[in-house]
Amino acid sequence: VKLLTLARDLQRKRAREREELFVCEGVRAVEELLRSPLAVKGALVSPVLAGAPRGAELRAQLEAKGVPVLAVSDREFESAAGTESPQGVLAVAEVPERSLTALGAALPPRARLLVLVGIQDPGNVGALLRTAAALGAHAVLAMPGTVDLWNGKVVRSAMGALFHRPAFACDWDALGAFLKDRAIPLWGADAHGEPVDGAAAPPSLALAVGNEGAGLSDAARSRLARRVAIPIASDVESLNVAVAAGILLHQLRA
Amino acid sequence: VKLLTLARDLQRKRAREREELFVCEGVRAVEELLRSPLAVKGALVSPVLAGAPRGAELRAQLEAKGVPVLAVSDREFESAAGTESPQGVLAVAEVPERSLTALGAALPPRARLLVLVGIQDPGNVGALLRTAAALGAHAVLAMPGTVDLWNGKVVRSAMGALFHRPAFACDWDALGAFLKDRAIPLWGADAHGEPVDGAAAPPSLALAVGNEGAGLSDAARSRLARRVAIPIASDVESLNVAVAAGILLHQLRA
Repeated sequence: VKLLTLARDLQRKRAREREELFVCEGVRAVEELLRSPLAVKGALVSPVLAGAPRGAELRAQLEAKGVPVLAVSDREFESAAGTESPQGVLAVAEVPERSLTALGAALPPRARLLVLVGIQDPGNVGALLRTAAALGAHAVLAMPGTVDLWNGKVVRSAMGALFHRPAFACDWDALGAFLKDRAIPLWGADAHGEPVDGAAAPPSLALAVGNEGAGLSDAARSRLARRVAIPIASDVESLNVAVAAGILLHQLRA
Repeated sequence: VKLLTLARDLQRKRAREREELFVCEGVRAVEELLRSPLAVKGALVSPVLAGAPRGAELRAQLEAKGVPVLAVSDREFESAAGTESPQGVLAVAEVPERSLTALGAALPPRARLLVLVGIQDPGNVGALLRTAAALGAHAVLAMPGTVDLWNGKVVRSAMGALFHRPAFACDWDALGAFLKDRAIPLWGADAHGEPVDGAAAPPSLALAVGNEGAGLSDAARSRLARRVAIPIASDVESLNVAVAAGILLHQLRA
């Protein structure tokens, strides 16, 4: 019952920060979690899980790994779940310690960093994490105003990308100093920038993408070495931010 | 009250097909609808609208355009709405007549078509429509197995792209004959295809993208002139389909 209360509490960002724990929900996300180096504290399962595809195997796997598994009723499970049709499994795991210092020690000579500026939609942030991982970005930095990376919906939509690669929140002063030390330029996606097709990518690059409506913040703009744009039809307002990041990371790949 | 019942009915695909009508919900989507050539039959508004940003202007605009506006209670509105936090406005509009014949007459010498193969997630289809419009695709064809383009969630997430450009369902025989007549090759996005970076784009091109899990159907595969892949990290399963389509449409642009 303590685990159930904890899982409910962890729906709030404040509780996640205090406990340094997060909730990972659904068969696929928990499978990815078990494949990652993150420490799993416990799992809740409901009767639904036995009927879900790969559900029985997942429960056996949790037990084989020594994860404490608590069986609860469907109604109790739903009180802690963030989805409308829960698959009957969620795990509570430790938010990993990640920092610019650790990242700096692991960065290859040709690095790509994706910098999220004020992106509030959890589904977009999940898609951005997945896109960055697929296209070889070495880290994703969530700047102030971006939704908490350990929000349940971000965790689900990132499909494991959050577990396997460095992604963490930081502030502009720390990121600015980090990039300056390593001579990594910060470029920003901006509708009024130069067309990206003409841009030769530098050896290492940090790419900032912003909220689809508001664009990049002043804090981001003031630090940009260059603004790049993807040419789009004049009657279309913007690309989805994950689509834009995908095109830019592909075009400017290391 | 007739409009309220109709709007509720139109949540079902069968009713949309029978009535040749669809529902467009939310301030922004209805604004886009009014900017488009589509015929609007009527609108439902609830008290919530007056408090929504641009809500009062939108109501005035509906009335100025001679759209019958029915005021209903919040509870009645919610019974017809597809969103959890409705903005208090939805419009019922005619599904436009669109066909390969009409498309053929309007196609430029260097055309791009995006072909959706069995894509069931409405949010993904909305993002694909928006991506295709932004990156200059002339039409989007929804093949069997793809969610109905006039589904409420597709309409909302397409943000107007569905109203302003040809997007419609068709079958493989009709599309196959159309492409053959015009000597437009069909390429498919496929994890096992050749890397897209080496591919020189033909003058006109139809690009097929499939379900993230299942990939392209056999019906699609058997018609492909070429399979192209976006190189991704080996430990990542796939890109989001809208991100993949964005990268390919950008890379293979006319």
